[in-house]
Amino acid sequence: MDENSNLYKIRHSMAHVLAQAVQEVYPKVKLGFGPPIETGFYYDFDFSEEEFAENKLKEIEKRMKKIIGRKQEFHYSETDIEGAVAKLEDLGEGEYKIENVRNLHSRGVEKFSFYENGNFADLCEGPHVETTGDLPAKAFKLDRVAGAYWLGSEKNKQLTRIYALCFETPEELQSFLERRRIAEQFDHKKLGKELDIFHFDEKVGKGLALWMPNGTIIRDEIEKYAREMEMKYGYQRVSTPHIASEKLFQTSGHLPYYADSMFPPMELNEGDDAENSEKYYLKAMNCPYHHLIYSARPRSYKELPYRLCEYGTCYRYEKSGELSGLLRVRCMTMNDAHVYLTEDQFEEEFRSMVKMYMEFYETFKFSDYSFRLSVRDDSDKFVGDPAVWDQAEALLAKVMDELGLEYFVGEGEAAFYGPKIDVQFKNLMGREETLSTIQVDFQSACKEKFALKYVDSDNTEKEPIIIHRAPLSTHERFISFIMEYYGGAFPAWCAPVQVCILPVQDSCMEFTNSIANELTRDLYRVEIDDSNNTFNKKIRTNTKRKIPILLIIGEQEVADNTVTVRRYGSRDQITVSRDEFVAIFKAEVKERKMLREPMGSII
Amino acid sequence: MDENSNLYKIRHSMAHVLAQAVQEVYPKVKLGFGPPIETGFYYDFDFSEEEFAENKLKEIEKRMKKIIGRKQEFHYSETDIEGAVAKLEDLGEGEYKIENVRNLHSRGVEKFSFYENGNFADLCEGPHVETTGDLPAKAFKLDRVAGAYWLGSEKNKQLTRIYALCFETPEELQSFLERRRIAEQFDHKKLGKELDIFHFDEKVGKGLALWMPNGTIIRDEIEKYAREMEMKYGYQRVSTPHIASEKLFQTSGHLPYYADSMFPPMELNEGDDAENSEKYYLKAMNCPYHHLIYSARPRSYKELPYRLCEYGTCYRYEKSGELSGLLRVRCMTMNDAHVYLTEDQFEEEFRSMVKMYMEFYETFKFSDYSFRLSVRDDSDKFVGDPAVWDQAEALLAKVMDELGLEYFVGEGEAAFYGPKIDVQFKNLMGREETLSTIQVDFQSACKEKFALKYVDSDNTEKEPIIIHRAPLSTHERFISFIMEYYGGAFPAWCAPVQVCILPVQDSCMEFTNSIANELTRDLYRVEIDDSNNTFNKKIRTNTKRKIPILLIIGEQEVADNTVTVRRYGSRDQITVSRDEFVAIFKAEVKERKMLREPMGSII
Repeated sequence: MDENSNLYKIRHSMAHVLAQAVQEVYPKVKLGFGPPIETGFYYDFDFSEEEFAENKLKEIEKRMKKIIGRKQEFHYSETDIEGAVAKLEDLGEGEYKIENVRNLHSRGVEKFSFYENGNFADLCEGPHVETTGDLPAKAFKLDRVAGAYWLGSEKNKQLTRIYALCFETPEELQSFLERRRIAEQFDHKKLGKELDIFHFDEKVGKGLALWMPNGTIIRDEIEKYAREMEMKYGYQRVSTPHIASEKLFQTSGHLPYYADSMFPPMELNEGDDAENSEKYYLKAMNCPYHHLIYSARPRSYKELPYRLCEYGTCYRYEKSGELSGLLRVRCMTMNDAHVYLTEDQFEEEFRSMVKMYMEFYETFKFSDYSFRLSVRDDSDKFVGDPAVWDQAEALLAKVMDELGLEYFVGEGEAAFYGPKIDVQFKNLMGREETLSTIQVDFQSACKEKFALKYVDSDNTEKEPIIIHRAPLSTHERFISFIMEYYGGAFPAWCAPVQVCILPVQDSCMEFTNSIANELTRDLYRVEIDDSNNTFNKKIRTNTKRKIPILLIIGEQEVADNTVTVRRYGSRDQITVSRDEFVAIFKAEVKERKMLREPMGSII
Repeated sequence: MDENSNLYKIRHSMAHVLAQAVQEVYPKVKLGFGPPIETGFYYDFDFSEEEFAENKLKEIEKRMKKIIGRKQEFHYSETDIEGAVAKLEDLGEGEYKIENVRNLHSRGVEKFSFYENGNFADLCEGPHVETTGDLPAKAFKLDRVAGAYWLGSEKNKQLTRIYALCFETPEELQSFLERRRIAEQFDHKKLGKELDIFHFDEKVGKGLALWMPNGTIIRDEIEKYAREMEMKYGYQRVSTPHIASEKLFQTSGHLPYYADSMFPPMELNEGDDAENSEKYYLKAMNCPYHHLIYSARPRSYKELPYRLCEYGTCYRYEKSGELSGLLRVRCMTMNDAHVYLTEDQFEEEFRSMVKMYMEFYETFKFSDYSFRLSVRDDSDKFVGDPAVWDQAEALLAKVMDELGLEYFVGEGEAAFYGPKIDVQFKNLMGREETLSTIQVDFQSACKEKFALKYVDSDNTEKEPIIIHRAPLSTHERFISFIMEYYGGAFPAWCAPVQVCILPVQDSCMEFTNSIANELTRDLYRVEIDDSNNTFNKKIRTNTKRKIPILLIIGEQEVADNTVTVRRYGSRDQITVSRDEFVAIFKAEVKERKMLREPMGSII
């Protein structure tokens, strides 16, 4: 956030007003830090002298509004270390602020500034609004309370952090609250449970999802779609094991660079013979295996671009504290591919890859994304010749320019073996995530690594360039993303249940069964709700399950050989002939149509 | 082999004749054992006094035929230990035979028998033919020479083993040789390389196959077929990780019983905190995960039979010496499923399962298989209450009887948790393999294990029975089997390349491309051979690749809008209209027809 923006000043000043109000209610409170944050501000308090009650938040909020009403001016003053300590002791704000100025002083800070309004003063560098009257009394809200260690260290005392939301206008606050309400309602962890998509069990372990039947249908449908697209774009599928000898990852360079992100090894010790002992690792990536498939036999320039793809399951040892639903996991199945090609083929292949990505995005109705050119920085995690890096980074920039694709540059966001293009998406709360990547790799083919070659038309051996590409990320990340983006309402082609038929009376059962049979015979996913529930309850139950199409079959429909169609998200009911419905439905699935606007593109 | 059969006597007597002939050529040779075996017999020799030359086999064979011509009678005699040692010293057959009689004597054997023919005698219990004239001079063949340790122990001296093939008639020998020639030609390891199906790389590790694009097509097609069948039979697919905490395998009982067959664990030691250390294992089976999915939420009797299936990749730590191509591997992807049901539902479900198996077998054109009822023996590897075992074994036998399925009983062949039905197939060499199983499990649901329940119609909680079933084995075993059974010539529906089009002249290219495009648009796998090879060479090359359908396009075809079809394994060429071919081909793939008889059902 820009420190000179009005919103920053508002949030910063509002934090002072919060501390001021808390002091009014709890005169013995000691103050920690109170900075602006992305959606408002917080302040840390030590309530050890007077117990804090969360139900006081309303009163504190009221007092804040009063302080705003008083239009107190913010006054700036400066002092040296002695003055600062004396002033803080005088104010009675406690040991934390004093510790802080002493720390700053020991690091060479000589001048300390305070901002004062009414009878409240706080050690602070500003900037602030002119008076509390400039603060938006109706655009803030004390949000929640959490514990937070002083200076972020578990060794220190735990303070009470009060979080507040704060915007410039009440409308912005309301809009944020609404967005958050929806985001919570559509949180993939919540939906995953309600819609029976995935499940974690401590017997299996943290970050290792069990995909329930409903989730597996979504995975299978996405994989089927990817397979068709990959076939169309000239890719060949392969299948490789989930483990390999350490030799493979030493060759690829993942060991030792990447070891921290990999699971610990298994020690194979055949016949208890320590000399024959060999370490095996779970794969954290598919590329080294694909390189071996490339080099399994000699390759000619006629075979290039040689495109290998695999929905390969990889294992990464994320810290347990970082795991979160399907978004951050330890087991992930990646829509991976590696393309081996000549430098001459690079631009055309890249162009065709971007076209494929766009085709995918269109199907999934993604509209809000941006390209990032991720390059190295001066960290030592980036391996290889700087000249080769320069060449690769320049090549990507050139092709992006030529394709007319706008992009921003992400310093230090490259893979360790080369620069990449990341496609950035925002989730319902506006948080940015990388969903697709295209990585260029001038390293893996070299003779120190996989020594990949092709025989060129002039009969000389050359090294291919490699592109790593993953338009659909991992099943875990991608499905968690679209689950939230769609609010759990999947389009018919990948919905676990595509059609639910609701017979109105028993006399409609024969007709109902006949439609169900016609569709299940062709392997469509159809259910009949023949429960004893009332008709309205059936509608409610199956709407809650977010089934895209409900078919209502009453006596009129039986008599007319029609069906009444009710789609998820609409109360409209349209009656069409049975054959017409079947034809429309089949086309909709075949063309992977998404008739409803995704939740995430509306809010 | 029945010891009283004529063939046993022949092989046994023939072994004597071999030793006799070898003694004629190498008078100082010492004799080991010489038993009949499945395809003939062998004899172990110590040639340390006179170096053995493999090119002497022809001469030895000739001498054997002469001995047969002499019609020497086999005479039986008996003696005690002293007599036996004296006789063996006398015969000069050496220390091995003497060591053997001494060993037998120390175990309480008092009487030793000899068989004598001509000037040759051997310690032997018989039975034999009457005279060497009863031996089939034209139905045996010295086959190969190998090293073999005396008494099978590496600590002993290595002897020279001469293997011979031997049958009752020359026709049987010829037929065996022909079958073996074909089996060698169609060995899946050989075909796997020639047809670019799979590849092993020491950087990945032993027993861990990389599936090349061609092999992955076969896997994908089989999996697609299984998925369709499973959907039809009411199964639901799930997807589970390849690792789990030791807790899971302790619950299932695989640890410690099965630990030797599992890969060694990974020690997860977060924050280097030994107290939080946890062992994770690669899964050797999918069942424990499916049980967790079953128990992820309460189940009602209305949901049963609840059928979960997964093509799940498992890892088993086979000893490296036992690994063989795809047949014995360390990474295997299993056509697995678990059905949870009430006892009342057992028979009907079993019947429907057998029907599904038969449907699979018919598609793959399997005809020669047999059912084995695999029950426990008194080994301690079989866990659980004997009464429950009796019940389960009786239930399987009863249902098999009621279904009228013939079966034989395999003692000790059960899984550790319950009895099973195995479907036994013979490979090209007649070796028996289990390809499909149906296992019944009364153990896993119990409260000490997964505590699986369902709420019955009377509102009480009950334990489901579990059936583990795998009709298509693992991809590895199944594909290695059909690769040999089909001689590498896959039917069009699962062949890596389904159609190869051979344009006769350049002027046929437009028509050729148009057919290719029509088919690839619908994702059929089509190639055009537009190489500079001669037409005959094109036919030869693509026949060698065992592509099921070659389409020949000459000027006549272009003019008539026809194609000339040549199928693998036939020299016939049939010209049909283009549209007719497309329709026939599409139906053939859709219905998974196999037009050619599999190699394995012919030989």
